[in-house]
Amino acid sequence: MTEPIDIATLVAARQAGYSLPAPFYTDSDIFRHDLELIFGRHWIYVGAEPEIPDAGDFITVDVGSASVLMARDDEGRIRAFHNVCRHRGARLQQAGRGVLGNIVCPYHQWTYNLNGELIHCKHMGADFDRSGFGLRPVHVENLAGLLFICMAAEPAPGFDALRTAMEPYLQPHDIPNTKVAHQSDLIEMGNWKLTMENNRECYHCVGSHPELLVSLLEYGFGYAPSPQNTKQIQGFNELLAREHGRWEGYGLPSREIDRLEDVTGFRAVRLPIARSGESQTPDTKVASSRPLGAYTHADLGGLSFWTQPNSWHHVMSDHVVTFSVRPLAPGRTLLRTTWLVHKDAQQGVDYDLERLTSVWIATNKQDGALIERAQQGIASLAYQPGPYSPFTEGLVEKFCDWYIGRLGAGLKDKR
Amino acid sequence: MTEPIDIATLVAARQAGYSLPAPFYTDSDIFRHDLELIFGRHWIYVGAEPEIPDAGDFITVDVGSASVLMARDDEGRIRAFHNVCRHRGARLQQAGRGVLGNIVCPYHQWTYNLNGELIHCKHMGADFDRSGFGLRPVHVENLAGLLFICMAAEPAPGFDALRTAMEPYLQPHDIPNTKVAHQSDLIEMGNWKLTMENNRECYHCVGSHPELLVSLLEYGFGYAPSPQNTKQIQGFNELLAREHGRWEGYGLPSREIDRLEDVTGFRAVRLPIARSGESQTPDTKVASSRPLGAYTHADLGGLSFWTQPNSWHHVMSDHVVTFSVRPLAPGRTLLRTTWLVHKDAQQGVDYDLERLTSVWIATNKQDGALIERAQQGIASLAYQPGPYSPFTEGLVEKFCDWYIGRLGAGLKDKR
Amino acid sequence: MTEPIDIATLVAARQAGYSLPAPFYTDSDIFRHDLELIFGRHWIYVGAEPEIPDAGDFITVDVGSASVLMARDDEGRIRAFHNVCRHRGARLQQAGRGVLGNIVCPYHQWTYNLNGELIHCKHMGADFDRSGFGLRPVHVENLAGLLFICMAAEPAPGFDALRTAMEPYLQPHDIPNTKVAHQSDLIEMGNWKLTMENNRECYHCVGSHPELLVSLLEYGFGYAPSPQNTKQIQGFNELLAREHGRWEGYGLPSREIDRLEDVTGFRAVRLPIARSGESQTPDTKVASSRPLGAYTHADLGGLSFWTQPNSWHHVMSDHVVTFSVRPLAPGRTLLRTTWLVHKDAQQGVDYDLERLTSVWIATNKQDGALIERAQQGIASLAYQPGPYSPFTEGLVEKFCDWYIGRLGAGLKDKR
Repeated sequence: MTEPIDIATLVAARQAGYSLPAPFYTDSDIFRHDLELIFGRHWIYVGAEPEIPDAGDFITVDVGSASVLMARDDEGRIRAFHNVCRHRGARLQQAGRGVLGNIVCPYHQWTYNLNGELIHCKHMGADFDRSGFGLRPVHVENLAGLLFICMAAEPAPGFDALRTAMEPYLQPHDIPNTKVAHQSDLIEMGNWKLTMENNRECYHCVGSHPELLVSLLEYGFGYAPSPQNTKQIQGFNELLAREHGRWEGYGLPSREIDRLEDVTGFRAVRLPIARSGESQTPDTKVASSRPLGAYTHADLGGLSFWTQPNSWHHVMSDHVVTFSVRPLAPGRTLLRTTWLVHKDAQQGVDYDLERLTSVWIATNKQDGALIERAQQGIASLAYQPGPYSPFTEGLVEKFCDWYIGRLGAGLKDKR
Repeated sequence: MTEPIDIATLVAARQAGYSLPAPFYTDSDIFRHDLELIFGRHWIYVGAEPEIPDAGDFITVDVGSASVLMARDDEGRIRAFHNVCRHRGARLQQAGRGVLGNIVCPYHQWTYNLNGELIHCKHMGADFDRSGFGLRPVHVENLAGLLFICMAAEPAPGFDALRTAMEPYLQPHDIPNTKVAHQSDLIEMGNWKLTMENNRECYHCVGSHPELLVSLLEYGFGYAPSPQNTKQIQGFNELLAREHGRWEGYGLPSREIDRLEDVTGFRAVRLPIARSGESQTPDTKVASSRPLGAYTHADLGGLSFWTQPNSWHHVMSDHVVTFSVRPLAPGRTLLRTTWLVHKDAQQGVDYDLERLTSVWIATNKQDGALIERAQQGIASLAYQPGPYSPFTEGLVEKFCDWYIGRLGAGLKDKR
Repeated sequence: MTEPIDIATLVAARQAGYSLPAPFYTDSDIFRHDLELIFGRHWIYVGAEPEIPDAGDFITVDVGSASVLMARDDEGRIRAFHNVCRHRGARLQQAGRGVLGNIVCPYHQWTYNLNGELIHCKHMGADFDRSGFGLRPVHVENLAGLLFICMAAEPAPGFDALRTAMEPYLQPHDIPNTKVAHQSDLIEMGNWKLTMENNRECYHCVGSHPELLVSLLEYGFGYAPSPQNTKQIQGFNELLAREHGRWEGYGLPSREIDRLEDVTGFRAVRLPIARSGESQTPDTKVASSRPLGAYTHADLGGLSFWTQPNSWHHVMSDHVVTFSVRPLAPGRTLLRTTWLVHKDAQQGVDYDLERLTSVWIATNKQDGALIERAQQGIASLAYQPGPYSPFTEGLVEKFCDWYIGRLGAGLKDKR
């Protein structure tokens, strides 16, 4: 326990089918490797296009000690830069969001345009070559209104495949023409991987999520048939086939795509919603009377979309709820949840904020408590990896496989 | 100062008769070794039997990042388990005390009985062998009502000798038939060894503990005769012999036992109380009118009992006050103090809570302030180990000897 | 990023003309070296003589985890000792200031006189040689009322040269006959070197310090002529020459001394003040009607005095404002600011506290915010050292040169 951790050895020794050894959740050196090799080198979901609708709008995105400034430039393109002045390193923007003309460092007023070029700095002399001191760019991609960044010099491969596969699923919902109805930041007292593992199974739903289970049919969330529930899963699959047929008749791709093993890994499927079949609300009816995109049916189920290593999204006929996970410390994680409705929907007229947000606000809080308990137990000397359920935790296993594989690859590259 | 600490070298270099070098009080690597090799391998005092009087009652015990669930099973036996689910490691019980039927993990409802057996878990398949996933047991011993645990696979030797020696001293006071009148948790801003060293001498009493000194005769607490006080100690020893004779006449073993050097080290002696001779109260008279055990004399002095590495206890005719020390961080320690009175004593009728607890609440607070000052000074670059008084700090030295010896033995085992 | 830092390599690789690599501001191992090799071995400014005007007066000075007790003894000499008892290491004085007869450790009442001699301790036996257990002394120097300590066994060389050079500048202002009108402690959320670098340039003044710029002529603070401002600097230099002539006519040495590269490095110059030319106040008029020393002219400008590694001072005709920087953690620094006025000046009669202190209270707060931003940006993976302005950041560069040189020398000594 007190000897320095050899991460490569731990990676190589990982036992399939079991939760990870404790250091992956608690060790500060592994956490630094997570920031460098996982969050520093892969495509990270950071927000939705409607968070920066107009030229000059910006948000900042903090991942570990990194901070990224993401802004829409005057031509409407979305740009991302490290939020660090090239002079003496001051953080350029501290606020989480706002509007910018140029980017002016408050320390010595070095000034960058929204292309990141250093356009003005005093006292540096006539020979100073400003072109060598532009802001360090960060790769950014806009997937049908969902914004991803990659902080590596060479971006991780596979975003094109993600786009090709997912645009047909997402575009009909016209996320660029939504607006942010609400955003919540929850700090969970656990490692970011516990947040992700918790998201990748619904084994815990029955015991913890009464609000969510009104609308959610758990068999859509990573269940495999077992002797105990063959019949129920068969029934669910018949419903799924029927609904997929109906939705695809509307032009809405619905079938499961599982590319979780890719470097830019993801999974998606359109799933039925219980009861009225409309939305993840307390009564399963739509929360907003303004449907998204060109569709007027309320009962379009929910398109669920998961990405490695840090996001998930549920897209319904009336709203989108989208989740971005950000590691803060080995035992502390930010979960940012954003609710999107049609950009013309009016609060109090077309939607009620409480009805829109209450299910996931309750569910996030419940998950946060479970994640904290898991972190507490895992931090104990007595913890040893335990077995995943082959029937309900297959997607947790896939997350761990991806993580261990990508960490191992990153370690090899460093040598 | 900035080079990594070589603990084995520090252990070997320890200078007898002097306080320990600073890293033993401040270094986080030594702290982890303390948790692993001292608290993880020795018998630790954690509470009194009356804290869990009935079947299903439990307490949790946190030591560093470890958490132990201690419960009374349906047959009345006391059991202890690591408070960690065998599935994905969630902490089973967060509350410090309560009542349990079975132990149900709140994450995925894995269910254990009070024998620690996994009796129920969903979705693990027909082939899953539950017997391999019982809770990890922790050794537990009940010494006449005082509860000790050992977290090592193979418990530390010597508990039988402790029991043989101490049961005759403790049993007459019938601790199992007491109840908890009060419990206080004090967080001291110092290393746990400073808490222990402070307990093992009364050199500091005169300057700091006015309330305690009303009832306490300091010469019973680690004093050796010196030219300055030969006479006083002789007088004290005559009193001691007289009282020992009287108490042993009642069937109460009283003479000093010093086995502080044993692996399961301890010391005990029955000591006179000043003035009325009854109890550690503001006026030295009993605090509770219901005597413990079968004895009706109020003036039975106080049986003091100390164990390595983390406890001390004072047993009087009317009440017991018992102290359990738990390391939280290199510079932070929990001191849990519990006051026990006869189980039929009624608050406000048979005892007044303020009278019962005020001496040790004041004394603990004073000690906490001294321990904080010691930690502050020792954390300074300028600290160097200082000399123990040969006349008043012999038991501090014995504590340090034990600690250094046990740490050294543990380091050898690890190699 | 995750490999252990090799400090000597970083020191050797430092690029001239650029800000320091991130670990110098963020790494805890480098911070410990800063405490040991920079603050532990050099002359540190810690306070002004009027803070301890009478026999028995003391202050404590905390630098990292070290604490120093500085007191005036019965003969009026100023003494400094490590604030650590030689018995079991308790901190002797927790309060920041007060009055002492002897120094009595509150733990076991070991008692030292103000010469640091152990004059009384109980229970140590007849053979105990108290003379081996005096308080560990700290070197102290009083430079015309400004107090410096050196915690090394052998004090850093160069204090005599500092005294010879600076006494003629400082003595006319008679600091020993001032009193503390106000003292403020500001905790800045950045590394101590960012506090120092920020002090060593006025490039940032225009954008951040409206209150200070009323009285301050920025060209006195580290500017070099550039094509853009040759004329202004020429004008400033003519003013400077004129004023230096006038002040030296009064017997006030005024010309710049730059010994920043010395082991005991410093710089001083008397600078004109804008508008009425009197004092760093909101309207540039004196804040106190009692002039310091024997001078009755109000327009004496301001003698600015900077020392490596941790202080700066502005001495005007009516008051002194003096700054002591103390590292608390890699990203946390205490800035103690003290305002001194004539010892007979009466608050509300001779000076108004708000007028006296408002400029630097506002300026310190602004600087603290800039330093926090710099720390945030530098802590990001994306930070890379940036270029100093050759025209306004030459003194920042000199600070970094001194620091890197002294750290390198200290590392060599350790080997």
